[in-house]
Amino acid sequence: MTMIRSYAALQAGAPLQPFEYEAGELPRDHVEIDVKYCGLCHSDLSMLDNDWGLSQYPFVAGHEIIGTVAAVGAGVQTVRPGQTVGLGWYSQSCMHCDQCMSGDHNLCPTAEGTIVGRHGGFADKVRAHASWVLPLPDGLDPATSGPLFCGGITVFNPIIRNGIAATDRVGVIGIGGLGHMALRFLHAWGCEVTAFSTSPDKETEARELGANHFIATREPEALARLAGTFDMILVTVNVGLDWDAYIAALRPRGRLHFVGAAPSVSAAVFPLLGGERSIGGSPLGSPATTAKMLAFAARHNIAPITEGYPMSKVNDALDRLRSGKARYRIVLTNDLGG
Amino acid sequence: MTMIRSYAALQAGAPLQPFEYEAGELPRDHVEIDVKYCGLCHSDLSMLDNDWGLSQYPFVAGHEIIGTVAAVGAGVQTVRPGQTVGLGWYSQSCMHCDQCMSGDHNLCPTAEGTIVGRHGGFADKVRAHASWVLPLPDGLDPATSGPLFCGGITVFNPIIRNGIAATDRVGVIGIGGLGHMALRFLHAWGCEVTAFSTSPDKETEARELGANHFIATREPEALARLAGTFDMILVTVNVGLDWDAYIAALRPRGRLHFVGAAPSVSAAVFPLLGGERSIGGSPLGSPATTAKMLAFAARHNIAPITEGYPMSKVNDALDRLRSGKARYRIVLTNDLGG
Repeated sequence: MTMIRSYAALQAGAPLQPFEYEAGELPRDHVEIDVKYCGLCHSDLSMLDNDWGLSQYPFVAGHEIIGTVAAVGAGVQTVRPGQTVGLGWYSQSCMHCDQCMSGDHNLCPTAEGTIVGRHGGFADKVRAHASWVLPLPDGLDPATSGPLFCGGITVFNPIIRNGIAATDRVGVIGIGGLGHMALRFLHAWGCEVTAFSTSPDKETEARELGANHFIATREPEALARLAGTFDMILVTVNVGLDWDAYIAALRPRGRLHFVGAAPSVSAAVFPLLGGERSIGGSPLGSPATTAKMLAFAARHNIAPITEGYPMSKVNDALDRLRSGKARYRIVLTNDLGG
Repeated sequence: MTMIRSYAALQAGAPLQPFEYEAGELPRDHVEIDVKYCGLCHSDLSMLDNDWGLSQYPFVAGHEIIGTVAAVGAGVQTVRPGQTVGLGWYSQSCMHCDQCMSGDHNLCPTAEGTIVGRHGGFADKVRAHASWVLPLPDGLDPATSGPLFCGGITVFNPIIRNGIAATDRVGVIGIGGLGHMALRFLHAWGCEVTAFSTSPDKETEARELGANHFIATREPEALARLAGTFDMILVTVNVGLDWDAYIAALRPRGRLHFVGAAPSVSAAVFPLLGGERSIGGSPLGSPATTAKMLAFAARHNIAPITEGYPMSKVNDALDRLRSGKARYRIVLTNDLGG
């Protein structure tokens, strides 16, 4: 039995306030984590506002969690108390469907979201099935690694899924919470990387993050000059764009790949057909792919750029996230006390 | 020097009439084919009518050609005079771009269409670069095999490109000139095959062609019941449909794959993202893939279902194709005399 102290919204869009709940007995295959840090993600805002109609209140957000293992159920063999671990968007999957049995737990039709129908990481403790609780490798800073478990794996997974090679040319649309991590991963992957942003003032930083080229998206002729050059264009924004223009920028077999939840995509069929181009997307990644990402990030010193807030200032942090000014990811430090 | 007798339209949409042209000297790497049979394809109509703005007049259609090699240029090593061969949509590719050098000649940006800016197979002879002239394997009937070189490879290529396995569930939208060949290929491939058609009266034939299941597309609830079941849905029609409903019918990682030139596709991003589903397309196939298809077709006795017309009745044949009543592919027999 564990009483958990958290910050919750009592209704859609409401400010968060202290909220305690009794977590009950720790299930046999679950891990209880003492939360040390928790990132803020745009999907925390979407869920807080009930944009997707999935939210339940009191609602405890937070799904980019770094902490230490407080306790493990009797069946847990992968982590031990005291170990530094991370937990992201998913907290459980069924472990028996075709997807789970094929290593694609992130595609499990009944996968449970850490903040969907249960309470997340804006709290002193959080629990999850052991399969989604991953040890943080040595060399990764616990204070900044939380966002790897949601934003990071979201942009890393398409590299794996699309078989991106170091010889490939990859574009990243949107240099924000997701996109800046994509630039770092793709640079370390050895790719020729182009950053697309509406903000010309991000050019210097985009290049520091690993972009070889920078395109201001308000200059459509710059995009037209790149026709037929990209193996993948990663869409990290959630707005509608001129998708035909980006598809024209793809090489034969190129992929327009969504990780930002743009509402819909519309495109002429002929360029898809003529060049075997495709439009796809992906959600986060499996635990195995997440572990692969963590090892890669540790080996290449890849971390998100973060701004820190104490968890007690979570409402200020949410305002900052809503403002669109965060550079690039916000992480709360747990100051709820012991 | 060769004078070629053909049937040509002198302007967009005009009836075809006898037309002779001087083909000049046979280039070193080219093959001259005595046309025996030539299929009719919807793209012959599109080009005849200049739907794509690519047509030049006098326009000689025909790009599903079976014939015997009449002559070869000095550099040709792959076929010899007298051999039975086929020629499809493409008649030449540059042989030095990245796509050609990677075996993807069908994606060559400067690939030449047999009826684009040159004269096709409604003629007593036709020429092409040797790379696109493929021997017809023993066991395939020259009288019905022409459509394999355009319609056939169009529906076979996605099986290869998408790595379709015999354990996969595949849907085929549209049971016509393309779709009926897709059913035969996919059945022989060992897949669980579902035919989608607006015409309930096609059910019996679709099942004979290899469909395990038949869905009348005017019953949307039948499609809704199949949510999450298909590894690939092949779109052989060129009309707009409720793509979101078909995407919902895909399994995780499933592919909505266009081979019919539907004008555009529009879809919600969330289902693509959540299930790593994708939308793509492809044009015909490379020479190597076409050769693979021919060997597979010969081994499994796969031929299109055809209606025959003498070439002198080409205008009647075109009317029949326009009527949408052909079951399923029309082939002209050359009766121009020798």
